[in-house]
Amino acid sequence: MKTISIIGLGLIGGSLGMRLYPHHHILGHDLMKRSMEEAVERKAIHEALSFNDAVAKADLVILAAPLSKIPELVERAAPFLKPGAVLTDVGSTKSKICAAMRTHLKPGQFVGGHPMAGTEHRGIKNAQIDLFDEKTFALTPESPEEEEAAKKVKELFKAIPLTWVSLSADEHDLTVAYTSHLPYLMSVLIARASMGATKNLPHLREMMGSGFKDTTRLAGQNPTLGRDLCLSNNQNLQTAIAQLRYSLSQVEWLLENESRSALELLLEETAGWRTVLFEE
Amino acid sequence: MKTISIIGLGLIGGSLGMRLYPHHHILGHDLMKRSMEEAVERKAIHEALSFNDAVAKADLVILAAPLSKIPELVERAAPFLKPGAVLTDVGSTKSKICAAMRTHLKPGQFVGGHPMAGTEHRGIKNAQIDLFDEKTFALTPESPEEEEAAKKVKELFKAIPLTWVSLSADEHDLTVAYTSHLPYLMSVLIARASMGATKNLPHLREMMGSGFKDTTRLAGQNPTLGRDLCLSNNQNLQTAIAQLRYSLSQVEWLLENESRSALELLLEETAGWRTVLFEE
Repeated sequence: MKTISIIGLGLIGGSLGMRLYPHHHILGHDLMKRSMEEAVERKAIHEALSFNDAVAKADLVILAAPLSKIPELVERAAPFLKPGAVLTDVGSTKSKICAAMRTHLKPGQFVGGHPMAGTEHRGIKNAQIDLFDEKTFALTPESPEEEEAAKKVKELFKAIPLTWVSLSADEHDLTVAYTSHLPYLMSVLIARASMGATKNLPHLREMMGSGFKDTTRLAGQNPTLGRDLCLSNNQNLQTAIAQLRYSLSQVEWLLENESRSALELLLEETAGWRTVLFEE
Repeated sequence: MKTISIIGLGLIGGSLGMRLYPHHHILGHDLMKRSMEEAVERKAIHEALSFNDAVAKADLVILAAPLSKIPELVERAAPFLKPGAVLTDVGSTKSKICAAMRTHLKPGQFVGGHPMAGTEHRGIKNAQIDLFDEKTFALTPESPEEEEAAKKVKELFKAIPLTWVSLSADEHDLTVAYTSHLPYLMSVLIARASMGATKNLPHLREMMGSGFKDTTRLAGQNPTLGRDLCLSNNQNLQTAIAQLRYSLSQVEWLLENESRSALELLLEETAGWRTVLFEE
């Protein structure tokens, strides 16, 4: 039984708190008083405290605030962290955040983290106790001291059935550009193309089936979060877009030349790749 | 109670047969004997016949063969159609098929059709009795005689709860380029981008969450069908791709210039559009 502080009691922070509540003493802080009250009501935290007190009393501090706020919270938390305590976060891009950790904290005091789970909904009211069960949790240790910090995080989270992945912050960010940020942006562009066409196509809405619905689901997520994701991983996202543009040009060439067999081969290769990915 | 013939007893033809079976006498034909047997076993058809007999005995003939085969089946069926009978189809692009109908059949003998339903699985063994319930069914009448044929189709299908949409073949094809074919192709390209990146990113697979899974679901569909869809709607698909390329360049410009507020505005506008689309 340790003391864990969660800074930012939204969907992610709240869900994590609910899951760890029976196993540890959970402290919490949020800018919104109402969120702290609801976190206590929903048994996501045992106690709401000020930012400084929450940090000072914890064996593990988890920064679960919006992505763009995390670097400054690292700096703010640094002076209050008690000896032997570890700070981590749940931000979905890691390079900038880990750079801030390395600037403001001592080796062994931190490791970057990112649980691969979420929904299109926000806030403590949408928190789910099983949001992380059977999901992947990435940690980004890049030195023996960060490896030690990672071990402490895993130990405190051991009640949750998680698949742990360990990789560098840069590799993490390039990977999620392909698995997460490019799909988001393309989802936006698929929805947007139809937006441009709607004036001349009065039956567009009635003709949208489950395929359109699935491919544009991500486009419905919170735009502020979407913007922060894209801009915090800007270079990698541009790399992934360039990769997609290359295949797009290839496909356009095949369409223009009506290359039946080459087009089928490309589609077959891709369908095969996807099958491999999602086979157990 | 009328006699309906279904030519092509796959997922679509089989599901339609199962649904209409209690209401009409259903005849069927398929190139594969095994599919005809299974269609009888699954109560998708009352009787399996030769192509010519199936066409000759029906009040309504439904061509449910693969998209690229339908125009030649129209020509083959034409001489056998009995007076007053109507021929329709379930092909997912309509311009070429309706042109073939206009060439080989008399006004009043035909109308183009397209049920907006399906799954990634194929064949009579995957047929589902409720595949079309509460879905959209598009018909493409373009003259008073075709309107009359459309009325007959609707009358025979009245046991199925469907939303009927009536539009021209050209408008249909441009609309599905945006609602169906562009999403499919983009789904392929999202999956394909990660395929190119996988060599250098060993943790790619573990980092693929539900967002990646949903946006690439369509990429898993049958590649031969995918090829036929794209090529049968080639010009419209290229128009839709051009529209998407325009937005892609816009987004890339915003990323390169780190235009926070303009990017958020674009994402917000798109999220809003999607909400409107899927609100009841």
